[in-house]
Amino acid sequence: MKEFTARRLDEIRATAPLVHNITNYVVMNSSANILLAIGASPVMAHCRAEVEEMTAFAGALVLNIGTLQEDWVASMKTAAKAANSRGIPVILDPVGAGATSLRTQSVQDIMSASTVSVLRGNASEVLSLGSDQATTKGVDASVGINDAVVDAARQIALEQKCIVAISGERDCITDGDTVYRIANGTPLMTKVTGTGCGLSAVTGAFCAVSHGELLKATAAAFGFYAICGELAARVSKNPGSFATAFVDCLYSAGPEEIERYLKIS
Amino acid sequence: MKEFTARRLDEIRATAPLVHNITNYVVMNSSANILLAIGASPVMAHCRAEVEEMTAFAGALVLNIGTLQEDWVASMKTAAKAANSRGIPVILDPVGAGATSLRTQSVQDIMSASTVSVLRGNASEVLSLGSDQATTKGVDASVGINDAVVDAARQIALEQKCIVAISGERDCITDGDTVYRIANGTPLMTKVTGTGCGLSAVTGAFCAVSHGELLKATAAAFGFYAICGELAARVSKNPGSFATAFVDCLYSAGPEEIERYLKIS
Amino acid sequence: MKEFTARRLDEIRATAPLVHNITNYVVMNSSANILLAIGASPVMAHCRAEVEEMTAFAGALVLNIGTLQEDWVASMKTAAKAANSRGIPVILDPVGAGATSLRTQSVQDIMSASTVSVLRGNASEVLSLGSDQATTKGVDASVGINDAVVDAARQIALEQKCIVAISGERDCITDGDTVYRIANGTPLMTKVTGTGCGLSAVTGAFCAVSHGELLKATAAAFGFYAICGELAARVSKNPGSFATAFVDCLYSAGPEEIERYLKIS
Repeated sequence: MKEFTARRLDEIRATAPLVHNITNYVVMNSSANILLAIGASPVMAHCRAEVEEMTAFAGALVLNIGTLQEDWVASMKTAAKAANSRGIPVILDPVGAGATSLRTQSVQDIMSASTVSVLRGNASEVLSLGSDQATTKGVDASVGINDAVVDAARQIALEQKCIVAISGERDCITDGDTVYRIANGTPLMTKVTGTGCGLSAVTGAFCAVSHGELLKATAAAFGFYAICGELAARVSKNPGSFATAFVDCLYSAGPEEIERYLKIS
Repeated sequence: MKEFTARRLDEIRATAPLVHNITNYVVMNSSANILLAIGASPVMAHCRAEVEEMTAFAGALVLNIGTLQEDWVASMKTAAKAANSRGIPVILDPVGAGATSLRTQSVQDIMSASTVSVLRGNASEVLSLGSDQATTKGVDASVGINDAVVDAARQIALEQKCIVAISGERDCITDGDTVYRIANGTPLMTKVTGTGCGLSAVTGAFCAVSHGELLKATAAAFGFYAICGELAARVSKNPGSFATAFVDCLYSAGPEEIERYLKIS
Repeated sequence: MKEFTARRLDEIRATAPLVHNITNYVVMNSSANILLAIGASPVMAHCRAEVEEMTAFAGALVLNIGTLQEDWVASMKTAAKAANSRGIPVILDPVGAGATSLRTQSVQDIMSASTVSVLRGNASEVLSLGSDQATTKGVDASVGINDAVVDAARQIALEQKCIVAISGERDCITDGDTVYRIANGTPLMTKVTGTGCGLSAVTGAFCAVSHGELLKATAAAFGFYAICGELAARVSKNPGSFATAFVDCLYSAGPEEIERYLKIS
């Protein structure tokens, strides 16, 4: 996986794939900067009148239901169908699923209307979409990723025929069969808003250069992202300067850091 | 007040109260980061279909009318009524009140439809809501906090049966009877967008752990926030790096800094 | 131009002109901070019910069509007409024009309904509005500013009776007759989201103190902005800390830096 991650990162930097985001207001700026830092080209566009055209240019589509409004769900479905018809991977971040009926229902609507390639959230969000439901407190991860969570993730991946990728102390990425666990990262990432949403965007960039290996591309995105978090935590122990250092590391880290630090199993 | 402030801050860090924000687009990211830095859990959600459910999880509700649209006022009223029925404190930031009829009228609508616990703004915004009206220039504080402003603040607190908390060179927090004045802070805070809105969010976090002492909790929020501004101004004299240092200080400052620096009367 | 630029900057810092922005969600925070850093007073307000009132207070109106929705176009036209009737300069940033019909059509609608003073974009965006159209890839500048681009810019300036200002490695600002070229700047500016949008906002601030010399004021804005980019690139080679340093430089740079570094012809 180390070499795979490094090669996919190099390809992002060489080709600057366009990642089309329909995402929440809180993270539009930070997600755009995170995508620019890794070498991708972000575009944010949510208006139903243009999402089909915009998705057609893109290497990946990232949907994120934070700060949701009803009319955005229609745009997300339209964009997802356009992506599906062109074979463009769709990443769905179910922010706050389980917390309110609007969120949970909207995720189900999007997943019924279109094919999602990767479902990326924290444990409580993702588990709220399966048969074994947890209660979420806002957008916080109230559940760690233990064996029961991994089993539930595999189950949801099989039910939904998509990759399920859960962020946490030890990330879990699975297609229902193979399971990757990543032991990188730092608790400081939970002290900066939008780090999870930024990871969904980065997953989009890696999936845009996946050459059909979406599971490995998702694991590569998670691994590289978490390594950059670790590197930034060496520079700063406080969240303001950590956030700045994190973007710096997403820009400056490369194959050498992946080789030295990636802890994946 | 020093011990009270320190204990409330400790309780925020120990319990991470959920603060539900219906706030403006400009500050959604910065307010979320500010709340995370002090130890609270932010959630941003404005859609009428989910605000009642979301408010029910929250320790405080923060309403902010910057970048207002008509349909958001309906959501704010719905959320405020839900908060009222559960005894959850409501903080209202009347950004730009007095500047346009939409803003002034919307604040009056919200205050008629629900009970606001704390009205937090600059002098011109707050005074525009009383009988003695000032003219505001956008969202700038065009009025200092002199004795006449303090008197007007007390009057509005009595009329509206809420705490009135005005930011400025020397903050004024009053329930109409007791008046707290805080002499901390730095002019650099006016060079970073969203510092006032961030203070409203922090006031929400302190009110969430007020145990009924809303006036003191509001003063504590103002005092701690202004101290962190002072500490950050020692690190940087320019607004970009000041903003980063300010978030760092909100995370790292604690009882010791409160004890040494708080200037409250 | 050096003395002109320095004097206009001083006037911004002395008078803090209000710049009314109807801009996209991604950059609302960064544009506000950039305007505060140079000494202007930003206000963001997009609701049709208040834009006329808000524009009336302003020294300049900045319209930006990133993250567009149909109803925002109506607000932009209303605000632009209000600005026109009061002689307030209007800056239009056609983000993503050429990429989708919604964007291209919306720019044409705004320019038919009102008089735009300055059209500020990258080459592909601006050229998509002329008779010689280029295809844009999202919001990226896929076209350099060669002689053909300068000729096209002059043509569009004459057709639209406005100043055309194109950002790129060597900026081009023209009223169709005189052409200013600016050779300052750094590639790192393309690695931070919203730097182009921030330049449109800063152009608004300089136009607010132009005393009728809009072409020179626009060139001054471009020159000062690019110098600050260069200064920030000396402080950091990575985009996170570069963005912070850039805001610092917009605040701290002045006549001396303009005198030493401005490369304009």
